[in-house]
Parts: sequence; C-alpha cells; structure tokens
Amino acid sequence: MLDWTLENLSAEDVARLRSIYEPLTESVRALIDATIRSEVGAEAVADAKAQIDAATARLSSEQVDGSYGIRFTADGDQMPWGNVVIGVRNPVAPPLLIEEGDDGGVYTDFHLGAAYEGPPGHVHGGVAALVLDHVLGAAASSQEKPRLTGTITLRYLRMTRLGNLRAEARIARTDGVKTYAVGHLADDEGVTVEAEGVFIRPRWARD
Amino acid sequence: MLDWTLENLSAEDVARLRSIYEPLTESVRALIDATIRSEVGAEAVADAKAQIDAATARLSSEQVDGSYGIRFTADGDQMPWGNVVIGVRNPVAPPLLIEEGDDGGVYTDFHLGAAYEGPPGHVHGGVAALVLDHVLGAAASSQEKPRLTGTITLRYLRMTRLGNLRAEARIARTDGVKTYAVGHLADDEGVTVEAEGVFIRPRWARD
Repeated sequence: MLDWTLENLSAEDVARLRSIYEPLTESVRALIDATIRSEVGAEAVADAKAQIDAATARLSSEQVDGSYGIRFTADGDQMPWGNVVIGVRNPVAPPLLIEEGDDGGVYTDFHLGAAYEGPPGHVHGGVAALVLDHVLGAAASSQEKPRLTGTITLRYLRMTRLGNLRAEARIARTDGVKTYAVGHLADDEGVTVEAEGVFIRPRWARD
Repeated sequence: MLDWTLENLSAEDVARLRSIYEPLTESVRALIDATIRSEVGAEAVADAKAQIDAATARLSSEQVDGSYGIRFTADGDQMPWGNVVIGVRNPVAPPLLIEEGDDGGVYTDFHLGAAYEGPPGHVHGGVAALVLDHVLGAAASSQEKPRLTGTITLRYLRMTRLGNLRAEARIARTDGVKTYAVGHLADDEGVTVEAEGVFIRPRWARD
C-alpha cells in the first residue's frame, strides 16, 4: 500500500548523505525566516529571487518522483528525512528531535520562529496540533510497531509564545491494536496545550 | 496583549507590497520542494547552498524584529501575511485561500506536495489537524469577531493522499463567547478526516 523505498544504505552512506543535505536544509530554513521578515526593496527582492530560482533549477535537475517517502538503511533503521515534523531534509520541519525519557515516555525541546505564527507573536493553534499529533504518535509507536492517529483531541489552555518550547507524551494504556497516549506542549511559563489520542496499528503492520 | 502593528496602508501600497513579495515566497516554496526531492551530488548542493545563503543575507539586511504579526490597511483589512496556513509571505503556508460557501460555511481547495508528508506519499496527520484547525476557526470567526481554538477533536477515517485536497467547515451553533464548528478534509476519493471544535472569542475581542 505504501511506497517504502528500500535502499540498504550502509551507516557510512547515511552519514555522507546527511553531511551533504542537512546543511542545505538548514540554509533553506534560514531563508524561509528571512522571506517572512524582510523589509528590503523591490530590486533586492528581485536579485534574491533570481538566486533562489537558480538554486532550485540546479537542485531539481535530478530528483525523485513525488515525495521523499521513507528509506531504510541496511540495519533496518528508518530514514524519514522528508517528514514535515522531523525530516532532516524537510525545511518546513523545525525539526523535532524526539528523545526517550526515563519514565518510558518521550520529549522534545525545540524552537519555533516566525514561520509558525498564527496570532501575532504566538504559535498557530494548528501547529501545536501538528507537533502534538507527532509526539503522541511517537510515544505510541515503536519502529517495529508503527501506529497512525485514530482520533486526537487538543485542549488549548492559553496561547503559546513563539520561541523555545517543549512537548512531552506517554502511553496511558494499550488495548489490542489501539494505544491511548497523552501529552502536552509547554512554553517557558508552563503548559499551553494538552492532548490525548488513540493511535492504531495499521493492518499492514499487524502480526 | 498582542503586538498588532498598525500601518494604515492604502490599497495601492498593499498591491505594491504583494507584487514584490508574493513571487519571492512562491520561489521559496519551489525551493523547499526541490530541497526535499533533490538527488544531485555534493558539489551541486554546495553551489546551491551558497546561492541560498547569499539570498538570505540580502533579504535579512533589513528586517522586522521577531515575527511578521498582523498588519492592517487603512480600510481596516487584516494582512496576516506571515500566517503559517494562509500567509502570502510565509513559504511554509500552502497557502490556503479560504472562500465563503453559499450555505454560510467556508471551503478551500489547495495542493499539498512533498513538504507536508508523514506516511510515505500521504499527508502527515498533524498537517490535516493544522489545516482543519485553521478552516474551522475561519468558519467560526469574522474579522470583527476573531476566535481562538478552545478544543478540537480530529477523527482520522483513512490516510490522505498528497495532492489536490479540499477542506470545508461551518458553524454548528453559537453559545455566547463559544462557537461550535464542524468540518472535514477530503482527497479525490472522499472525506479522510473529520473535525469538530469549540472556538472562543478572546477577552480582548469581546464587546
């Protein structure tokens, strides 16, 4: 059903690809921020646009059809590098680096700038949902047992300031193919959004 | 509470600014797609990165502090150009153009490509949440009466294919400062995600 691209890359291949493409992605993230905040005039914008179009033409002269997908290393590790939340090749991703906590849950510390704005100076409520959907899903999943969102509910306690943020999630309980996860988003003054969701092991990933 | 920047721009000023910055934003969107999908080698990537860094330096030589915020025209129209879902200056925004339906609801037709991927070839569940949060909020709000998300619940019926999509929303009922909205996301085979939410008029926007 899904177009998993099997590549069997060695750890060295993966490190080499990462060293080539990750700095490019970081440069594009900085460009996104500058594109939103720039106040330069028409001539400077036209010059910058010409440079960007040239870079795009160069990069797209050889490219995969469609989206990035998920590639695998020879060790069976996933490379979800195109993922909109965690992808090291996706400039839209902050990106989140999800870590395992001592209590069996997961957490991630990250920064959201001008590109994620909704209310002035604050994180778009839907971006909070995007982050929490991913983090709760990560808490509910393991590499061997991926899970997809069944339902998720977000409760907004107050607005979330743009800046340094943390998201956390853990499994509340598991019932067959359903895993119930809870979590929250916090800024430097505490929790701003609470979430709970049901994550389901897709049919193609069941035993 | 919010840093609304008042600018009193004329309609001509707005059109001029849009003609300068919107093509730039569209170029950066194309670059984001190429950055994810490119298969060119290290030398070409380094060349492209140098051009991108030069463009960023040029654009950021004069820029606003912090995020874009929302500016107003002399007519009182909002310019949420930095918004992550609808912002004409935000390359992360698809962007959505939200239209009013005949039945009092709202709808939007849009395209999501490689930059919005979760499961291979499919829209990230959190991006569906981001879109639906915004579209339900738009159905629940008017320019005079902005509303922020109180709670929202998403039900995922199946995965959403990357490509041409539609989102719709309408008000189910209003009870004082609370407005209940419902809506859905659909791909070319029908509804993929259903949503319902409570949107609250913030204290600073009440009579």
